[in-house]
Amino acid sequence: MKRKLTIFKIGGRVLEDEQALGAFLKAFSAWPELKLLVHGGGKKATQIADQLGFTPRMIEGRRITDEPALEVALMVYGGLYNKKIVALLQGLGVNAVGLSGADAGLILAQKRPAQTIDFGLVGDVVKIDSLRVHWFLETDLTPVFCALTHDGRGQMLNTNADTIATQLAISMSAVFPTELIFCFEKPGVLAQAQDESSVIPQLNAALYERYRQQKVITDGMIPKLDNAFDALRKGVQKVRITHFNQLKKGTHITLE
Amino acid sequence: MKRKLTIFKIGGRVLEDEQALGAFLKAFSAWPELKLLVHGGGKKATQIADQLGFTPRMIEGRRITDEPALEVALMVYGGLYNKKIVALLQGLGVNAVGLSGADAGLILAQKRPAQTIDFGLVGDVVKIDSLRVHWFLETDLTPVFCALTHDGRGQMLNTNADTIATQLAISMSAVFPTELIFCFEKPGVLAQAQDESSVIPQLNAALYERYRQQKVITDGMIPKLDNAFDALRKGVQKVRITHFNQLKKGTHITLE
Repeated sequence: MKRKLTIFKIGGRVLEDEQALGAFLKAFSAWPELKLLVHGGGKKATQIADQLGFTPRMIEGRRITDEPALEVALMVYGGLYNKKIVALLQGLGVNAVGLSGADAGLILAQKRPAQTIDFGLVGDVVKIDSLRVHWFLETDLTPVFCALTHDGRGQMLNTNADTIATQLAISMSAVFPTELIFCFEKPGVLAQAQDESSVIPQLNAALYERYRQQKVITDGMIPKLDNAFDALRKGVQKVRITHFNQLKKGTHITLE
Repeated sequence: MKRKLTIFKIGGRVLEDEQALGAFLKAFSAWPELKLLVHGGGKKATQIADQLGFTPRMIEGRRITDEPALEVALMVYGGLYNKKIVALLQGLGVNAVGLSGADAGLILAQKRPAQTIDFGLVGDVVKIDSLRVHWFLETDLTPVFCALTHDGRGQMLNTNADTIATQLAISMSAVFPTELIFCFEKPGVLAQAQDESSVIPQLNAALYERYRQQKVITDGMIPKLDNAFDALRKGVQKVRITHFNQLKKGTHITLE
């Protein structure tokens, strides 16, 4: 039987709450199939930057990754959170290995070209070494990716964690049937933003379009869902959006 | 022909000087044999801790690794320096992979038992997975270790970088003929502390003992040399102490 791979993505809220992180990692460690984890950063990076006296540069409301901001990302995503998660997983019997996109040359990116805005040291994914990831998985390692990539010429780059999870899922779907699960602090995509019982059990592309026009789905959920549909269109078998405490529930994203 | 492994250790001074680090990494990348790198942290950790308002706890002049100090170590050693080095090596064509002792469960440690002083979250190395390190090397990866370990129960620990390099060399010498090279800011062990032309070309155990009694060799060099002789006694083929810009020179440490 061909093995399956599940890619989990967790964000800032889970990372900032020790109890939530512990509960998620316990469920993750019990997940029976091949798995890997992608984690974001959250507010800790902003907090550390503040304490270090770096003022985040913003242009038109968008954050710019300048050199000090990248250093904070290296410290918080690549160091603090990544190593903490790896140690906790090791304690749960999972042979985790913490990785950035630079490690083993796994995720090559290019600095986003400056158009109307120069986002600074931000990378768009160019190429993933899926064979190397496969080889890690097949030798019983569980990769834990932080949201950092490199340009292959010596420069680390900041890359959105949802994007990394999506691109990894697309790339790995050539090797394994792959499921992508975005875990966050809500039980799924909600039909009414304030009502957690209004989880949409299945969301297809047509319904998404309608909800988007009706402004039922707004803000941060839009790039996440765009990533989700992109993944499905490019070969990922299943995509789900769910609460980090309910890994088997949530909203199933489907093309049709 | 059996392949050889060279383990390089670099410290804070190299890391803090971008030009020096670049020059070292260029020479390291050109090193023709199997190799791996262990790096320390240096003053950046103290500086970041200061800026974050953490006052390092000291007991009897010894630094204590409390929880905030460990967080800074995770950020600076595990994140900032480790990922920067990996990206630079990738740019030089070396397929580097950044690792702490927790990653892939490579270096298991135990918290140093509190005796007269409780050093806090400091780990003494218990076990190294030399087969896994071997497997990384044999698949063309170049491990880059930061000075962090874990206790296998979820806790990261701070471990001296010289000690990690020494223990790795001892462990790997069961797999490959292994050479250990401590790189620092002086051209070797000096017969006169202030005279850089006074490099001792070869230092054996008897001479070390004499120099130590005569206080020719003092301070920070003593634990480094104790590590060096420990390595030789436990199977490491060669040990050298040299300047980070002169990888083929320096002081050869020998038992006899």
